[in-house]
This record gives sequence, structure tokens and C-alpha cells, in this order.
Amino acid sequence: MRALRIDTTDWTVRDEELRAERRHYGGRLLTSTIVAEEVEPLCHPLGAGNKLVIANGLFAGHASAPCSGRISVGCKSPLTGGIKEANTGGDVGCYLGRHGLRAIVLEGLPGEDAWKLLHLGGEGVRLLPADAYAGLNTYDTVAAIRRDLGEKATVLCIGRAGEQRMNAASIALTSIEGPPSRHAGRGGIGAVMGAKRVKAIVVDPVAGKGTPPADEATFSALCADFAKEVREARKILRDYGTANLVNIINELGGLATRNFTAGSFEHAEEISGEKLRELIDVRGGAHGRPCMPGCPIQCANRFVCADGTVVDDIEFESIVLLGSNLGIGNLDDLAKLERACDDIGLDTIEIGNALGVLMEAGVLEFGDGPGALGLLREVSEGTPLGRIVGAGAAVAAKAYGVRRAPTVKGQGMAAYDPRALKGMGVTYATSPMGADHTAGAAIPKRPGIGELELDTMDKQDKDLLSYDLQILTGALDALGVCMFTGPMVGPVQTWARILSAFTGEEWTFRRLLELADDMIQLELDFNRRAGFTRQHDRLPEHFLTEPLPPKGPVFDVAEGKLDGVTGQLRVEDRVREE
Amino acid sequence: MRALRIDTTDWTVRDEELRAERRHYGGRLLTSTIVAEEVEPLCHPLGAGNKLVIANGLFAGHASAPCSGRISVGCKSPLTGGIKEANTGGDVGCYLGRHGLRAIVLEGLPGEDAWKLLHLGGEGVRLLPADAYAGLNTYDTVAAIRRDLGEKATVLCIGRAGEQRMNAASIALTSIEGPPSRHAGRGGIGAVMGAKRVKAIVVDPVAGKGTPPADEATFSALCADFAKEVREARKILRDYGTANLVNIINELGGLATRNFTAGSFEHAEEISGEKLRELIDVRGGAHGRPCMPGCPIQCANRFVCADGTVVDDIEFESIVLLGSNLGIGNLDDLAKLERACDDIGLDTIEIGNALGVLMEAGVLEFGDGPGALGLLREVSEGTPLGRIVGAGAAVAAKAYGVRRAPTVKGQGMAAYDPRALKGMGVTYATSPMGADHTAGAAIPKRPGIGELELDTMDKQDKDLLSYDLQILTGALDALGVCMFTGPMVGPVQTWARILSAFTGEEWTFRRLLELADDMIQLELDFNRRAGFTRQHDRLPEHFLTEPLPPKGPVFDVAEGKLDGVTGQLRVEDRVREE
Repeated sequence: MRALRIDTTDWTVRDEELRAERRHYGGRLLTSTIVAEEVEPLCHPLGAGNKLVIANGLFAGHASAPCSGRISVGCKSPLTGGIKEANTGGDVGCYLGRHGLRAIVLEGLPGEDAWKLLHLGGEGVRLLPADAYAGLNTYDTVAAIRRDLGEKATVLCIGRAGEQRMNAASIALTSIEGPPSRHAGRGGIGAVMGAKRVKAIVVDPVAGKGTPPADEATFSALCADFAKEVREARKILRDYGTANLVNIINELGGLATRNFTAGSFEHAEEISGEKLRELIDVRGGAHGRPCMPGCPIQCANRFVCADGTVVDDIEFESIVLLGSNLGIGNLDDLAKLERACDDIGLDTIEIGNALGVLMEAGVLEFGDGPGALGLLREVSEGTPLGRIVGAGAAVAAKAYGVRRAPTVKGQGMAAYDPRALKGMGVTYATSPMGADHTAGAAIPKRPGIGELELDTMDKQDKDLLSYDLQILTGALDALGVCMFTGPMVGPVQTWARILSAFTGEEWTFRRLLELADDMIQLELDFNRRAGFTRQHDRLPEHFLTEPLPPKGPVFDVAEGKLDGVTGQLRVEDRVREE
Repeated sequence: MRALRIDTTDWTVRDEELRAERRHYGGRLLTSTIVAEEVEPLCHPLGAGNKLVIANGLFAGHASAPCSGRISVGCKSPLTGGIKEANTGGDVGCYLGRHGLRAIVLEGLPGEDAWKLLHLGGEGVRLLPADAYAGLNTYDTVAAIRRDLGEKATVLCIGRAGEQRMNAASIALTSIEGPPSRHAGRGGIGAVMGAKRVKAIVVDPVAGKGTPPADEATFSALCADFAKEVREARKILRDYGTANLVNIINELGGLATRNFTAGSFEHAEEISGEKLRELIDVRGGAHGRPCMPGCPIQCANRFVCADGTVVDDIEFESIVLLGSNLGIGNLDDLAKLERACDDIGLDTIEIGNALGVLMEAGVLEFGDGPGALGLLREVSEGTPLGRIVGAGAAVAAKAYGVRRAPTVKGQGMAAYDPRALKGMGVTYATSPMGADHTAGAAIPKRPGIGELELDTMDKQDKDLLSYDLQILTGALDALGVCMFTGPMVGPVQTWARILSAFTGEEWTFRRLLELADDMIQLELDFNRRAGFTRQHDRLPEHFLTEPLPPKGPVFDVAEGKLDGVTGQLRVEDRVREE
């Protein structure tokens, strides 16, 4: 497989073979390996020394391998100052794989302000002028690009947030359904793309399958069985989307509410997965949609607001951070916030955190949906207040002297209050990515998803649970496949068998986990070289001291347990044998 | 000597004797000792766990001891996240000493929004309601307090910046000449006072002398001789103020210019000490004024702008950061910025850094004095842009995606570009205080100030020079006396002799330096416990890679040398014997 290197200093393009020892590296494993090896940890994230690495998964191009078209984007994060990987679905990864690419690396820094676009199409690899798209948000960018380069083009791009190098800027990818509704959201990676003055990467769809499997028959059979299994196990995601969690987490008393000052929300029912489905059924829209070719899970949806605004996909995290966390108790208001974030190219989680902090500061009232939407317009326009919102929760808290900033390593927390979900709290605290739920999602058992049945309030062994999940999830991330295939023992064992058939090498469960563990250790080492210590693996003080209503827990996992997670435990001591 | 403890949670006041082992602790030594012992390094700087320690010097009250009325203010810094001490002159320290106090400690966090004022007067210690002063800037606050509590009251207070808990908020102290023109500026200490809802501390002047010296005759004789010596040696400060350095540092090619993108300024002559003196002589105003009782140096001034605006004291750092660093080449414009900072209660250095970053971002043009003054009004009003300015340079750079933030540990640099003054660069990098020139000011020889004759561009031994100066300055800070008495061997030896006569114990030069070294090690240890590592003892990348016009130096002191400064060198290996 090949990687494209774009030196933005002189806009040269180098097409290179991946090193032999990296032939089985995909997704986060490839981005983190390249960043850890090639980026000086003390460089400025927006400077010439940082690199933006866009990598697809090992099986990208094979629509038969379930959910294998994820794209990982890695760099030194402008938000956290540490290493970052954010991944998402959409249709770009599949076609990048069919173009024979495993990665695109943006390097250097242009001396001039002109914007460029990278086009992978019938004419080969081309760098095109993109000033015509500058200033457009993602929906208009994609529409304009499709007008110019073909209606079927798949697109990875930034909106005005990325152009303005904001810490909360995401990178948008088109969904198989068309719109730029899939976002590699976290860590300000869109700002790094903006600093490199690359507005978009456009990949024409092509037929084919990517890297041929070593044992095609076994690979196909395993994939077909697994796709069927995953489809059945994840029925609830097809029916209600990730929003099925709203009522569950609210019941648990851990739903981020009003800047994390409460764990349940009086209007939770009104923003639940069930309500979402009900309104979709009544108003039109869609549920159970795939975001990439061949996805058997199909958790995506399309929501139509009462005023006719169409919102492409509403996820659980966005519902909570833009809903209960802002005291907003209706889907119409929060869906418009979600749509604005998608358009401007913003991480909904970070923005929800930033707005929560500003509501606590009194800049606007909790519950003021139209006011929040107005602030997002200011982000797009780059007004001073928009700049504060776009810089994320930690900066917003500094600007307004707010003590309760729900951040770790400068990154805002996801929807789960760590006082009520202590395993998630350990992940927030210790993941090299900052407060990131996807790095090791210790959530309770969900109907049809299963396996983990936990007392999430209890601190017992939550350090071990978090690290198990960090490694299991890391294995999925390293393959570049969707987390919803399951960061659990069974599914990862299946992925190891699929990997064996694909590569012709023997990949045991243990070997795959060791690869993931090595990846996480590499990330932690980068962070240490960037100046991170065990003191950065802590939750903010108020989560330890202020009990969370209504159930009253505090985060009480001992500091020593947190140190153990990232510093000392290794996979050989932890994982269960096959 | 006594310390007052104010628990703002319930507004109780405790009057306690200093522990015996701290009887010789003053100034920074006392603030850093209390903060290091009593403040949890991972607490939120604006939370209940932080303490604001206000300490005067050992000799406070004795006007005969030259420049001994300094006030140190210490806490965990909202700006850097590390330990902080900022000190200044004015007349409060002297009278605090005469009230028998060595320190005032503000603890806890009030549950309500009401403002309080601490009054030390004939009625004893009183906590008074201060809502009537809320919303006033420092000049109006002092005027109102004097109206209510007596025209002679000396005052330590915050302006609207501190009330709004801004990272760049200073604490203002009245000068012996009346106005609140002396500022403990750095690190956002005013925000901590604002979080505690203490608007002002008012100290009525009383007669007396503070702690009686053990050997009064020797103490008085030594002080009288030293005052005479200092007065003669520092004549240039009386004639031109600290502004005498403008032409010298400009000539050297190290004068912070346009957000540290150049080291000399084409209008340097227009903002020089010589020009300042010329305009004072022509327009009226004053030079050679003391800020505290009995100061023999008298570096302060009063400047009258062409439009009649009176500015109480213009210092070198303010001239450079609010002048050349903003491309502003006339004293009238920058003096008004200085006056606005004094009034709002802002650190002129941090604000100059923040405005420089915003000018680089294009928010306003370099050289736009009236525009900058407008932004300071926005700081006072707390508009979103004002909040960005008031949050300091690092936050401003994050909000606007600016790569060139001239900060270390989140604190903006002083007037000296570290590429041209490498010893100062080592101090910026390694001081526990962040980029702080006063922590170890490796400046070249100045006429009449003397001793250090250096090639400041040369990196040779600048690590050793910086640490010598950090310790020598630390000794002055630990006594609570003015740096301008000289962070040099001779003056510190004299202070050791004065200290011996004062305490009746034998204080050698070495013993005094060891005390200072211990203090710095304590501060470094606090920072380590707060998560600081050697990676935080680095200058921003661009100072290492972008040569500074016109002479072209980069900062090239090896990383290992920086590690040595704070980690390994101890006074016993370093200082010259008496």
C-alpha cells in the first residue's frame, strides 16, 4: 500500500510505498506511528513541524468487511498539546483504499495564503487552486466541489472553523448518503488542516476492492458471518441510533446536564432516542441508514425539524452536549445546533462543553437554543465571542473566569458524567487523547449490545476495566474499523481471524492486543515528551469535591489507580486468553 | 510578627503569630512557603483551595532600610497553573509592618457574591461591605475609599479586571504620592483576589517602625551607608527612570518589537528615557520620585500627555510592551495605555503581549494606539474581545490561531527578546514564575548600575549566569526589598550584614543565598507537583527557529543547559565565597 506526502511548503507531492514493517498498520496505528516518529513533541501544533496524517483502515475498499471504511486523522493537537487521533465513518475511506492508498500526510507550512485542494481522480493526483471554496462552510464546499469535479465525488474538508484555525475545528467527511455529516471531530484537527491551507481532499469513487486478501475465500466467509452477527447484535442502533442511550444514562444519573452540574435532566425523554424515532416516523426523515458502503449496523439517521430544516444524523453525544448540557430540552433546537456544527466544521462535543461554560458564566441562559445557534453563527463569522466558543471549553473558561471547566488535557468531556460512570472517568483521565469517550467506553450494558454489566457508580476495578477497553478499542482503531463492531473480547477475536485470512499471517487475539497496547504506549510516550505527567491524568478538582445530583456520587478512583492505568499495566498482565 | 488569616467562606478573621522557624521569612519566601505547604498543586486557581498570600518584607516599617517596603503576593497562578509571586513597591508594605503584620492570607471561597474590604485602622481589623466599590476601577476605588475611610489611607485593591477574574489582572497598590500606580502585576493574582470577593485591603498609616532591630545602632548605621551608596549608584534611575534602558536594549537588537518579530524599533528614540525626561521637563510632570517611604533610588515619574492626561509612572517594561511591541512610536499613545492598565488593574506586560498577538492576527494594526486604548476599554467592560485581551497572550493566540505566542508556562515575556539576551532567555525558560524578567534579569551593563558586562548574544555560560541571578534576586525577594538595590554580590552581602544586625543572628552571604535557593527549590517542587516538567522549561519553538532582525540571532542555549539550571545546580556549587 502507498502513502501520499504533500509538502505544503512548496506543494510537492510524493507517492511512496509504506515501509514493510507497517504493511499491517491502518487507522490510528498508522497516524500515531507517523506522528510519534516524525513530529517533534514540542513543536507548535499550527507550525511547519506538525503533520496531519489521514489514514484509512487495513480492509478499506472491501465493503464486505463490516464497517471497515473508517478514516483516522492524527497530528499534534492544538487543543490538548498532545498526540491526537480522531476517526469517523463516511465514504472517503473506502475509496481511498480502492485508489491503493493507506495514508495521506500533509507536511510543512505554505508561505502564502492561497488555498489548495487535493484531488484523487481519473487524472491521477492533482493539487488544484481552492480559493474559490475559501469562506464556504462544509455543505456549500461539498456542493461547489461536486459541481466542479463531479457529483459523485467523496470529500474530506474543513469549514470556516478550520479555516480560522480554531481549537474545536473538525474535519468533515461525506456520508454515503451525500452530505458532509461525518466528522473526525476531536482535538482541533481541522485547525491543523487549516494551517496547512488545504481546504479539501476529494476522492473520486472507483470500483475495485483495495488490497487483495491472502485467503479470499476465508476472508469473505468470515466477513459475511461477522456482518450478519453484528447486524443482529446492533439492532437497537438501527432502530434508535446511538440516541438509545439517552434514557439509559439519564436513569443512571450520569447524563451531562447544565455544564455537568447534574446527572439527570428533567426533559431527557424529550431528547431521547425513542422521541427521535417517533418524530422521524411522524415527520419523515430516516433512521437505520449506513454512513459507509456495506455497513451492516446503520446507526445513522436524518431528522426533519418542525420548520423543515433537514439535519443529517443526530448522535447521542451531540444530543447530550448540545441538549441536556445546555439545558435544551427539545430535539428541534438541538438538531439545529448539530446542523450548524456540521456545516461550520465543529466538534459538537467540544462546542457543547464551551457553550455550557459560557452559560454558567451568564453569557446566555441555560435552555436558550436560539441564542446558542446565534453563537454558532458568530463562530462561523469569527467574531470575538465566536472565537472564544471555537477555541473550546478550556479557553472559554479562562476567558470568563469560570472554575467549572469539564476538561482533561484541555479537551471537553463527552456525554457521560465521570462521577456516575467511573470507568469512563478513568478513560477520560488517562487516555492519551484527553477526555475521550471513544478511547475506552465503559458504559453499562445496553439491550442488544451487551457483555458489560456494571455498577458504573462503584469505583472497584474501574481502572482495570478502562484499560481493557482502551486496548480492545485500540485494536479496532488500529485496524481502522468501527468501534460499534464491539470493543469486546468476542468481536476482537473475530477481527483477529479476519486479519489472519487477510494477511496470510497468524494473528492471535493476543498479538492483536499487543499491537494496540504498543500503539497506546507510543502515544503516551509522545505525550511524555510533550511535557505530560501523571498530574495531567487527573479529572478537574470539582468532579472530586462536588457531589453530582440527584444521586450524589463524586469521582473517587484513587490517584494511584489512575497512574497504574497508563504507566504500569501492560497487556500481558491483563487480557484474558483465547 | 503576626499574620492575618481571612477565611472568605464565612468571613472569619484569625490573627496568628508566625511560626518561630518563619520569623525571618518575608516577601516571596513567606508567600511561597505558605503556598507550597498549604495549597494543593492541582487545585483550581479560582477555587476554594487556592490561597492569596500578601506578605511584606522583614524590614517593613523601617523607612531607613532602603527600599524595604515591597509587598509580595503569592498564590497558584490562574495564568501559569504554577506557583506565583509578584511584588511591587508603594506605601502599603511599610504601614502593614508598622501594624505588626508580616502577612495577610485570603483563604476559601465565599458562597455569595457580596464584596468585602479589609480595613486595618484605629478600630482594629474590620471586614466592611464593599459592594459600593464594585465595578469601579482602581483610581475611582481609591478615591472612594479615601472619601469613606480617610484621605491618608493606603490601599491595595483590584480593578474591574480582577473583579472579572481575568488572567492578566494585577493588584494595585497606592504609591506614597497617592495614586494606585504600583502593581503586583504578573500571573493573574488579581483574579484570585477577585474570586475571593475581596475588593481592597486598606491600611491606615501609623507611626512606629515595625519589628525592632536586635542591634539598632549597627542596623541604622549600615542602612544609612547603604542608602547613600544605592542612591549614588542608581542616579540614572532617578534621572531617567527604568526607561533609560530603551536605547540600550534597542542598540543591542533585543527590544521586543511588533510581537517579538524584530529586535530594534525605528522609533525607539521617541519612546526612550531621554525623550521621556525631555517631555517631562518641557510639559511639567516629575521624575526622580519615590514610591515608598524612604526610598533613596526614586525611579518613579509622572508624565503629562499632550492632551493633559496625567500618567503616574511609566516604566521600561510598559514602554516596550505597550510601545515598540505594538509598533507604537510615541509616548503619548503608550502612556495612555499604561494609565488605562493601571486603572483597570492589568499587568502591562501581559496586556502588551496579548495586544501584540492580536495585532499579528490582524484584529488591529500595529501602531494603532487609539485602537489599542479602545480594546482596553473593552477589557474594563468585559466584552468578548476584552475578555480575550484580559485572558493574556496565550489565550489570545489560541482564540485567533496565532502561532507566535511569546509565552513560557503561559505567561508573556518581558521587554527583552531572548534571542538577543540569552541569559534573560534562560531565566524566562527556567524560572518557576514563567517568562519573568525580574526572576533573574541578565541585562547588560548599564551606566551607573554596573557589574555585569556581557555579550548578551553569546550563549556561553548563560545558564550559570541566569541561576546566579535567580538566587541573588531570590535573596532580595526573600527579604522583601527592592531588586534595584542590586541582585549582585556586593549589595546582597550588605543585606546579609543588615540582616545580622536586625536579627542578632549571624547571616553570612552564603546562608542568605542558601535560603533563597531553598525557596526556589520549593517553588520548583510545587510546579512539579502541579505537573510541570523540563519540557515546560523551554522557549516557544519560533524563538529557536526564526532569526531576530536586524542582527539575526536565534535562541540556541542547549536544552541540557536549561535542565541544569532548575534541576541540578545548587547554590553550594555555584556562588562565589565572601
